[in-house]
Amino acid sequence: MLQKGIAAAPGIVIGRAVVQKDEMVRYERRILDQDEVAPELGRFRESVRAADLELEQVKEKVRHEIGEEEARIFEAHQLFLQDPEFIGAIEEKLESERVNAEAALEEVRDSFVAIFESLDDEYMRERAADLRDVSQRLLKNLLGIHDQLQADFAEPVVLVVHDLTPSDTAQLDREKVKGFATNIGGRTSHSAIMARTMEIPAVVGMSDITEQLQTGDLVIVDGLEGEVHIRPDEAVVAAYEAKQQAYWKQKEDWARLVHEESVTADGHRVELAANIGNPQDAVQAVENGAEGIGLFRTEFLYMGREQFPTEEEQFEAYKAVAETMGKDRPVVIRTLDIGGDKELSYLDLPKELNPFLGYRAIRLCLDRVELFKTQLRALLRASIYGNIKIMYPMIATIAELRRANQILDEVKAELRSQSILFNDHLEVGIMIEVPAAAMIADQLAKEADFFSIGTNDLIQYVMAADRMNEQVAYLYDPYHPAILRLVNQVIKAAHQEGKWVGMCGEMAGESLAIPILLGLGLDEFSMSATSVLRARHLLRKLDYKSLQETAQHVLTLESGEEIRAFIKEEILNKL
Amino acid sequence: MLQKGIAAAPGIVIGRAVVQKDEMVRYERRILDQDEVAPELGRFRESVRAADLELEQVKEKVRHEIGEEEARIFEAHQLFLQDPEFIGAIEEKLESERVNAEAALEEVRDSFVAIFESLDDEYMRERAADLRDVSQRLLKNLLGIHDQLQADFAEPVVLVVHDLTPSDTAQLDREKVKGFATNIGGRTSHSAIMARTMEIPAVVGMSDITEQLQTGDLVIVDGLEGEVHIRPDEAVVAAYEAKQQAYWKQKEDWARLVHEESVTADGHRVELAANIGNPQDAVQAVENGAEGIGLFRTEFLYMGREQFPTEEEQFEAYKAVAETMGKDRPVVIRTLDIGGDKELSYLDLPKELNPFLGYRAIRLCLDRVELFKTQLRALLRASIYGNIKIMYPMIATIAELRRANQILDEVKAELRSQSILFNDHLEVGIMIEVPAAAMIADQLAKEADFFSIGTNDLIQYVMAADRMNEQVAYLYDPYHPAILRLVNQVIKAAHQEGKWVGMCGEMAGESLAIPILLGLGLDEFSMSATSVLRARHLLRKLDYKSLQETAQHVLTLESGEEIRAFIKEEILNKL
Repeated sequence: MLQKGIAAAPGIVIGRAVVQKDEMVRYERRILDQDEVAPELGRFRESVRAADLELEQVKEKVRHEIGEEEARIFEAHQLFLQDPEFIGAIEEKLESERVNAEAALEEVRDSFVAIFESLDDEYMRERAADLRDVSQRLLKNLLGIHDQLQADFAEPVVLVVHDLTPSDTAQLDREKVKGFATNIGGRTSHSAIMARTMEIPAVVGMSDITEQLQTGDLVIVDGLEGEVHIRPDEAVVAAYEAKQQAYWKQKEDWARLVHEESVTADGHRVELAANIGNPQDAVQAVENGAEGIGLFRTEFLYMGREQFPTEEEQFEAYKAVAETMGKDRPVVIRTLDIGGDKELSYLDLPKELNPFLGYRAIRLCLDRVELFKTQLRALLRASIYGNIKIMYPMIATIAELRRANQILDEVKAELRSQSILFNDHLEVGIMIEVPAAAMIADQLAKEADFFSIGTNDLIQYVMAADRMNEQVAYLYDPYHPAILRLVNQVIKAAHQEGKWVGMCGEMAGESLAIPILLGLGLDEFSMSATSVLRARHLLRKLDYKSLQETAQHVLTLESGEEIRAFIKEEILNKL
Repeated sequence: MLQKGIAAAPGIVIGRAVVQKDEMVRYERRILDQDEVAPELGRFRESVRAADLELEQVKEKVRHEIGEEEARIFEAHQLFLQDPEFIGAIEEKLESERVNAEAALEEVRDSFVAIFESLDDEYMRERAADLRDVSQRLLKNLLGIHDQLQADFAEPVVLVVHDLTPSDTAQLDREKVKGFATNIGGRTSHSAIMARTMEIPAVVGMSDITEQLQTGDLVIVDGLEGEVHIRPDEAVVAAYEAKQQAYWKQKEDWARLVHEESVTADGHRVELAANIGNPQDAVQAVENGAEGIGLFRTEFLYMGREQFPTEEEQFEAYKAVAETMGKDRPVVIRTLDIGGDKELSYLDLPKELNPFLGYRAIRLCLDRVELFKTQLRALLRASIYGNIKIMYPMIATIAELRRANQILDEVKAELRSQSILFNDHLEVGIMIEVPAAAMIADQLAKEADFFSIGTNDLIQYVMAADRMNEQVAYLYDPYHPAILRLVNQVIKAAHQEGKWVGMCGEMAGESLAIPILLGLGLDEFSMSATSVLRARHLLRKLDYKSLQETAQHVLTLESGEEIRAFIKEEILNKL
């Protein structure tokens, strides 16, 4: 039996299921005698301390075994344990209502979660999930339960659970857990992200998969298609073994392309680069054959901490990436894109009705010049260690670009006066992600050294559809002719002025998009590191000359659906 | 002394100030004896009833003297008095904490207001202002205070106050209050809107104007420029008397154009239409010389009520406007544009992180087909009473337009089978307000009978800037070359297919925009009724032929600032 879900991490696994249902953690709500209050408070505080210690260990384990970004999830958990509003509310409830710690904890947790969820915003939902996860840890500590999720298995298994919290995922033994399927979760949930990093095939959002399977059942998790086969028969198993082999072979084929050129069958050269979120990612980018970094998001430096990063901290991070990539491979570093849905606790930003249309990125940097200057100083200082390029996000007017460059010039003058070295010829480009920028690309191309089209945001604005909003997600379509026409317009405008154009949205890595973008003349494709080899493999089979015509034809089609079908039938299926 | 504020309602008034500072309403927080609780509860309930009665009267007065839409503000106030969450919380506090009604009221109000304001969303801020206003009314009732704002004056005055609540504004005697200035408020605040409808010159957002002026001081309120002159000397008064005369003369000149044609100096004819929000507005539109209704917003039918309007109610409203405008003057009726920031209590919509990029307008109607069909039936039935055209909002793809037309065809078939008359040839057009629609205007023009460019939303999406968000409002610029280029593209695409193009955003009524839009070939300009005569006056002095070149030149300029300066110097100043 086949059940559809959401593909969370690629790959195919065939194996025996271990099904773990959520066991209810049981306790009784109890009214304390007055003299029990103080010891109960002590017991609660002890459990907070213990949970904090556990989190410290999990965090370190995750940092080493999985990655920096994933470890930060547990920092967020620790912050809850230090949050006087949350912990204080529990203590107050315990004291004023004289209830046991378990009840006080759960009641306060429920009211906080209700508040977070009532806001129904992606960020708050994640906070609610975090709060649930850390509260569960506290509760288990109070009750002396250790590790609800059985994470050690005698042999390799496929884990089938209601949900995997980041805590659960971090505990998984990668040698034993060969895949997983969960009832809930989406592609961007913490667990899905961790599964991709850990390279464990996973399908999430399966509704009731824990009811469909029993421990010991044979199961196939197809993380490529987002499907789970429940107790497959021999024929299905055989077919999937073949599919698994093909996938492995494909991965091997791709792996052989690590040091190959990104060149089409008819000799047209482009650059395949990687998007990264922190300096460690650059290592993975090189291993995956990226010829550069097309987008280094610098937000990681600012998030999950108590104050702004110093110039020195930033300098070290930028320098590290520059050195990892070496003198030849370009590193495009995007200046701070904070605000909107990405908040910093130490930067007091107003809550906005429409954060995606709000005070963020370059808008914020041009307003808080000192913040911006610190980053530019660090970037300039790091520029002598590699091939760094600076990129401003969210540019919508020429005035913004000029103002940013004016500030950059001021910083350069400061450095010069202090005899600090920097690369005075470093390229300065802009993201094209606001529709206005695409419409005046001809004017911007005269003053920017390069463009990088940020399709993730551009599509949202052009379609007036928040891609996180499920009810309008159908409108978020990279292949809508409006998007492709804007991309075409931007590339033409840049080439007219002899400037290069990249793309750093997810679209740049999609097999259906690559032939079109190539045909439109895109110079640089920046994607997640794990997509680079697949893209190179495809690229080497494509014919640039004929795709130029194909792309122009595509611009006359009427819908994303039609365009995708055309590329699939006329290009991909004929390779 | 000159002080700048925000122009809220046009006109100039020179007169004596009456300054009213907010007097603190004083009472003591008191713990009640147990036997006082029931009487106190009775006293509170009595004040709720009294406030409800007052609101009923204010509402009726406002409905007759000002308008339907303004009256609805007081309906919102009444809803608070009927809200079991709000009133219940006060009663519960009174009973459980045994505090007097005044204290219970203010404490509950503060907690509600804090919640509303913490969300920092335009809609919620308005709810907070409403709640403050209605609570103040309740408090005054409890304390036996009548009318904090002294609203009757012996002679005409200029009112200078911290803020004018809608309740205050509604009480103003238009014969005595010749203008007002407030410390707080913005152009879109309730009070500003009411001042415009009542045609009282007003400047708001003056920070501390109540501190700068004393009752009896001479003051000039310039609602054209958004300026207040504090104790002006004779020369300034003389200058402003001249300015006032000029303004009055101008209004007279304009008034003579009511029945004139909307035609340029060189004989090019366009249509000047009005945007309206309810059937009564159509009368005012005709009085102001509008040649049609370019946008009839149908949301008024759905808002401030407990359930969806019936087909019959809608039919009556559409028919009323069609009849008011007569057989010749077109009435473009926009189908429901609810969702986003406009919520209906009886339509359970999810709270969205970015409502402007969310589930609204045609997206919602195509999903809730019965809701949509009811409106289409009412529109079709009304179509035989005048020159009705249907317009779909928020179209982003051809598929949406086709699906909407398919539903319209289904409704037509139903009516036919029931032998109900309708105009089978009525035009069906779309709003161009999503950037995607502007980018595929050539394709949409093949299937829509007309376009109306909705610049208010289009600009927000193209600039990725929420115009309600003060921190990015500087980006909300109708004259940004990106906007003008899109408008140009849309008009060209429509004319290519022989279709007409209107504009129903505020831009269409701006003196600086009219020469450009005319030059780009816009066919219909739809604006607030009070702008029509000013626009016609301007239009009759413009030269269409030469503006075509001017407009093309404008598209090559680099910023909104540059474009505005160019039009001012090269066109308007030379008239």
